[in-house]
Amino acid sequence: MATAEELKRRVRELENELIKCKQRRSSEEQVHARAKIEKMSAEVVDSNPYSRLMALKRMGIVDNYEKIRSFAVAVVGVGGVGSVTAEMLTRCGIGKLLLFDYDKVELANMNRLFFQPHQAGLSKVEAAENTLRNINPDVVFETHNYNITTMDSFTHFMDRISNGGLEEGKPVDLVLSCVDNFEARMAINTACNELGQVWMESGVSENAVSGHIQLIIPGETACFACAPPLVVAASIDEKTLKKDGVCAASLPTTMGVVAGILVQNVLKYLLGFGSVSYYLGYNAMQDFFPTMAMKANPQCDDQHCRRQQEEYKSKVTEHPKQEAVEEEVVVVVHEENEWGIEVVSEVTEAELQAASGPEPDLPEGITVAYTIPEKEETSGQTVEETDQSLEDLMAQMRKM
Amino acid sequence: MATAEELKRRVRELENELIKCKQRRSSEEQVHARAKIEKMSAEVVDSNPYSRLMALKRMGIVDNYEKIRSFAVAVVGVGGVGSVTAEMLTRCGIGKLLLFDYDKVELANMNRLFFQPHQAGLSKVEAAENTLRNINPDVVFETHNYNITTMDSFTHFMDRISNGGLEEGKPVDLVLSCVDNFEARMAINTACNELGQVWMESGVSENAVSGHIQLIIPGETACFACAPPLVVAASIDEKTLKKDGVCAASLPTTMGVVAGILVQNVLKYLLGFGSVSYYLGYNAMQDFFPTMAMKANPQCDDQHCRRQQEEYKSKVTEHPKQEAVEEEVVVVVHEENEWGIEVVSEVTEAELQAASGPEPDLPEGITVAYTIPEKEETSGQTVEETDQSLEDLMAQMRKM
Repeated sequence: MATAEELKRRVRELENELIKCKQRRSSEEQVHARAKIEKMSAEVVDSNPYSRLMALKRMGIVDNYEKIRSFAVAVVGVGGVGSVTAEMLTRCGIGKLLLFDYDKVELANMNRLFFQPHQAGLSKVEAAENTLRNINPDVVFETHNYNITTMDSFTHFMDRISNGGLEEGKPVDLVLSCVDNFEARMAINTACNELGQVWMESGVSENAVSGHIQLIIPGETACFACAPPLVVAASIDEKTLKKDGVCAASLPTTMGVVAGILVQNVLKYLLGFGSVSYYLGYNAMQDFFPTMAMKANPQCDDQHCRRQQEEYKSKVTEHPKQEAVEEEVVVVVHEENEWGIEVVSEVTEAELQAASGPEPDLPEGITVAYTIPEKEETSGQTVEETDQSLEDLMAQMRKM
Repeated sequence: MATAEELKRRVRELENELIKCKQRRSSEEQVHARAKIEKMSAEVVDSNPYSRLMALKRMGIVDNYEKIRSFAVAVVGVGGVGSVTAEMLTRCGIGKLLLFDYDKVELANMNRLFFQPHQAGLSKVEAAENTLRNINPDVVFETHNYNITTMDSFTHFMDRISNGGLEEGKPVDLVLSCVDNFEARMAINTACNELGQVWMESGVSENAVSGHIQLIIPGETACFACAPPLVVAASIDEKTLKKDGVCAASLPTTMGVVAGILVQNVLKYLLGFGSVSYYLGYNAMQDFFPTMAMKANPQCDDQHCRRQQEEYKSKVTEHPKQEAVEEEVVVVVHEENEWGIEVVSEVTEAELQAASGPEPDLPEGITVAYTIPEKEETSGQTVEETDQSLEDLMAQMRKM
């Protein structure tokens, strides 16, 4: 039988041990956070997470790096490409990130960067937000755990693109498509055409060894409905890949490269340096990186795309030199040329026109992802003139 | 005054609370680990971390993906490129990783992928091993927290390259240089020339907007002492960058792309698919990716490089078609051609020869990183014939 003295000593011991245990837990949690930083500084000290980015100014690459904090970017799809895209933007100090994904983290995702085994079972947007907020608490995060292709979610998605900017009520500055299927790409395309929202598309082939990024400016460049989506040629038939019980291959390398060239294009577009690429492909087998550009198709199936084309035309007519510079929605001020964009590939006006049809005259090594069966042998035939509507094509894709 | 009964109750309460606190801590730690996996499976289930990699076989890209587990790769420099390189190899299921770095994690590294704020103050190799082991416990890790350019460490480094393979006593299969300075690159070059060790070099320019990777096969391709190191042209003068108190710029995008193309080249080399690139550059401003190749320089300053060249020559003479196939040290069996390597760029024999001098005839957009002042205007002048030895050049670099 323990004496009162012994019991009191035991209580003190246990209280001390409990305090220590709680302190350890607390420190394990709290050590993850760094304090928020009010103003980006270029000071060269080990404790400054922005010193290497602010150095881009001193090196003459970027005029005003701090401006990165004024932008809001939506990332749709937080998988192999989207998660790394979000991490890069977070580490670059973007103002706000909006993340959209309906999926959960699985161990089967561990062959790509970003997610870790202990996150299996969490929603991708929740897991990503936890990690990213911890990496950079200066970024504002907004996450949506839903499938943008369902009716209600699509309406909400449209609303957040229009109003989810850094200042609530203003549109986001850029939408990035990092999804892995045709339907979700078409949903983003439809939303961005209706809203006149500039966006960038990205994709990786199902054999994991090619990928691409593409800039879409509604009314100016080809939208996703203007021309069939393009892929860098792979030596296998894309159509034979999707079969029941068979999963696509993926590699952290290809997805890391695609996320890297995507976010690089975003930085160049938002901060106004270098040449923004309209289309950049990556063929990993040959280390071949084709570039090209495609104009919008006047016979595009999407009415909002045709409306944007009309608006773009009158804008160019009214302000032939500076139509984009004063443009409120685009936000970015490009000082070098109209759009701050140069076509990297040597594509002529005629080639661009030719590329607007259903079977564009593509640079060597690029092929369309899905071909539409031709009905007649007329040249200049467009998607709209074929027997199949894009809805039919989508239905067909779903069945594959 | 508390009664004995009250004290006993308090002891029970505290004991229970302490058990719960310890359980929570324990579960927070253990939840991070996944069980080891004995054999890679292609089964398409959410819980299989290798299903998307094994799918590369079904897609006809890789003949024998499981072979990845038989390789040991050394990563020298675990910074912006090296850490992502190590993560990609870990997620791909490499057999063994040897990590070398003397540096600590700082908040100033947070603009690049991989490290997180709570790791600040840890050694990079320790922090990396913790994260990587957690991501994939099937990989064997060996870490060395030292500077390979100091005398003792260099000897130890040589020993681990020679004996640190998956089976102790066998050499590693590949060395990857992900360091950020001239001295460390020269140390790796010296070690690999002496050992006949195939390695790949990587680099990112100090203005953060260009980078490259290069494959070096001692005796066959130009080593780091055969020709000045190459960089993709940047519009600024590299020499003006290193100044006291001024840090280099860096971007997660450029470093992610360089790590991606590096590890892709590693996978192609080790698993025998696609075309392995000798040199692949990345100019982020123009989205320009030059490729080229350079032969070893018969007048190279490094005696071991010259010896390797002699050995390579006699090997080619003895076994003109299959010299590499039976080669024990290289380990990789290439079935497609001698080295399983194709030159991607259209460089002729004559151009290769010309490229072996100190001012190689380089493809458009590539320039040498450091130029050696010419003494006389003789063509065909080599590094050895210049007034400066590589030691002088190194001393000069250190002073910059």
